[in-house]
Formats: sequence, C-alpha cells, structure tokens
Amino acid sequence: MNNDSMKIPQATAKRLPLYYRFIQNLHSSGKQRVSSAELSEAVKVDSATIRRDFSYFGALGKKGYGYNVSYLLSFFRKTLDQDEVTNVALIGVGNLGTAFLNYNFLKNNNTKIQVAFDVEESKVNTKIGDVPIYHMDDLEKTLADLHVPVAILTIPQTAAQTITDRLVAADIKGILNFTPARLNVPPEIRVHHIDLAIELQSLVYFLKNYPD
Amino acid sequence: MNNDSMKIPQATAKRLPLYYRFIQNLHSSGKQRVSSAELSEAVKVDSATIRRDFSYFGALGKKGYGYNVSYLLSFFRKTLDQDEVTNVALIGVGNLGTAFLNYNFLKNNNTKIQVAFDVEESKVNTKIGDVPIYHMDDLEKTLADLHVPVAILTIPQTAAQTITDRLVAADIKGILNFTPARLNVPPEIRVHHIDLAIELQSLVYFLKNYPD
Repeated sequence: MNNDSMKIPQATAKRLPLYYRFIQNLHSSGKQRVSSAELSEAVKVDSATIRRDFSYFGALGKKGYGYNVSYLLSFFRKTLDQDEVTNVALIGVGNLGTAFLNYNFLKNNNTKIQVAFDVEESKVNTKIGDVPIYHMDDLEKTLADLHVPVAILTIPQTAAQTITDRLVAADIKGILNFTPARLNVPPEIRVHHIDLAIELQSLVYFLKNYPD
Repeated sequence: MNNDSMKIPQATAKRLPLYYRFIQNLHSSGKQRVSSAELSEAVKVDSATIRRDFSYFGALGKKGYGYNVSYLLSFFRKTLDQDEVTNVALIGVGNLGTAFLNYNFLKNNNTKIQVAFDVEESKVNTKIGDVPIYHMDDLEKTLADLHVPVAILTIPQTAAQTITDRLVAADIKGILNFTPARLNVPPEIRVHHIDLAIELQSLVYFLKNYPD
C-alpha cells in the first residue's frame, strides 16, 4: 500500500500502468527525457490530461525540456509496487485462457498466474507453461490454500455468474472479466470488464465518426 | 456516418458501445426506465459522467423517473450504425485469434470477421466457424479483393510492426492491437490498443490503492 497514491483520482490511476509501460520502453531505449506531446502521441491520451495526471505525481515538466524519464520510471515503479508480485488464478482454460497462460506477465509486470482451473478432464492435472491446471470442483480448496487475491475469468458467459459467486465466497478481491456478462458482486469486490465485442465496436464507431 | 455524433467528445464516444450493450440488456429484460445511479452501478462509470454524456445525446433524465430505455436504445442503435456491418480481418490464428473467431460478434454487434490470416500451413485453407483462413503471403491481394477496413492483430509482438506496415499499405483504416507492441502508423490510421498485461496490472493497482 502506498498512501501517497491515495490522493490520485481514479481516472488518473487507471492510466498509470499505461504510462509505466511506455516510460519503461523509453528508459530501455536510452531516452532521458520526454515531452507531454511525445507521451500523448505514444499512449493516445491528450497532452493536457497527461500534464494534469503528472502534476498529481509531483512531476512537473519544464517548458522545452519535458519530463525526466528516470524520475518518472522510479515514481511509477514505486507507485505500482513493482517489487511485490500478486498471485492470480485463471478460471477457464479455453483459447483465451490458454493465450493468457502463454503470455509472460512477469516480463513487464507484477502479477503471476499461479494456478488455472477448468472442467475438462483432459486439461486437469496438466500444465501450460509452469501453471498447473486443477478441476473446477477444487476451486474453493485450492484458492484457500494458495491465498490468491485476483482471478481472470475466461469461461463461457453462461457460467460467469455462478463461478463469480464461488470466487467471492472463496475470498477473491478482484476479477478481470473477459466474458460478456455483467457480474453481480458485493461492493467490496472490484471487477474490471474487458468486452472484446465492445472494443471492436468502439474502434468501428471512431472510424465512422472521427475520420481524419 | 452520423453527423450529429460529430459533436460528441471522444471520451464520451468511447463509452457509447458500453452504454449500448447495457441498454440492450435492459430492453431485453423488459425494463422501461433506468436511473443514472443504476446505469452507473452496472457500467462502472460515475453517475455525474453518465448524466453529462447523456446530455450530449439530448437524453435528459427526469428526477425520480430516470431515462426512457426505448429512447436510449433507438438513439444508440442509430448512432452506432447497428444496421451496417463492418468487415474485419483477423491477423494471427493462435489461441487469442481462435478465441475471437469462436466469439459470435454479430450477436450484439455490427462487425463481422470475414477473413483470417496465419503463417502456419496446417491452418491455411481451413475454416474456424465460417471464417476462411488464408496464408499471410496473400494478405495484400485478399484484403484488396474484400474491402476490409478493420484488422484485429493477434500475432507475436516481434511481427507486429512489419505486419502493421503491410496492413497500412493494404489500405486498412483501423487496427485493434492485442500485441504489447506500440505501433507506428500514419496519423490517419486509428489504433486501439488492448494490452492484457496492463489490464491485469491496473486491476491489481486498484486493489492495493483503493480498498473498500
């Protein structure tokens, strides 16, 4: 927990991981400073918003100089607790779930998929990458043993609410929901929803209505 | 093209597909009105933002009544051009790409994956769902024949920029980028970037910093 960051508005906080990723890339490529205009172009957030966001971090860009990349990097690393790994459970090892397991989150990240669950017997007791796959029947017992606070939901929509109820009962605090279902959870549980159809629809809308 | 919607701020426009999806669900379940508080709870956008967004659409909720669901539905349908289908090409039929092909976008949507591409010979000239898979070598020729304006990029990061350059040369207007790469494109090309690692990191950040 970082008490300083409690003052950052949630809309700003949502952009932190995006900024962090880009600043990391800049730092890797040896760049020492960056302007809000360059950042804006790269992360697709308007530069007035970037300047306002960064002012919350105490990062004040200088006119004609921009922001110091090392300062931003150390700020983001500290704020995003990059040194503390959070364990994640993946629920549903279909195509989308398998894509997640093959994705190396630790490379740029502070999260690790530690365990996966599925109902299909042919997948149970196998591994993808280093991640063991358990039967969904063992969900509660396994999560209690492992103290996993976050779940990624990559199951069919029809099963989404039932499994969510079980995750909540098993003391999960956050769910990354990739199903089209809107989940009902108690207010203390945080759900981030990524709807692939909506993302595609949004892109099409912009193409039609904001042509360059 | 809907000229009315040209006046809607981009931040508002980004939320349209999300609103639309939820209003559709409400309408299907027979609900006739909805308050901004209910909408806020469902789509996880604060109610002041919802009221401001809706004021751009000319939808003025009445105190103690809320918004008329049928009005909102017909507005969103018209604005999002639900009657016009946009063709989409899927680039990369790995696990993530296959998940897209198995996802029935047309069910709630105005987009259709018409064609897919991969380099793996075992996949080329097969179909997933109704979508034919072509070899990546035939990208330019096939896209020119089919007039596809949008591409979903689900290929390895290392190939992302090379393929993007070919998509741009083949007259693609919009790219939904699921690779971790930040793509360089001409300013008239729109790229929406969904980075699975960043989404997960963002959820973890909120859990740590905004506990309820």
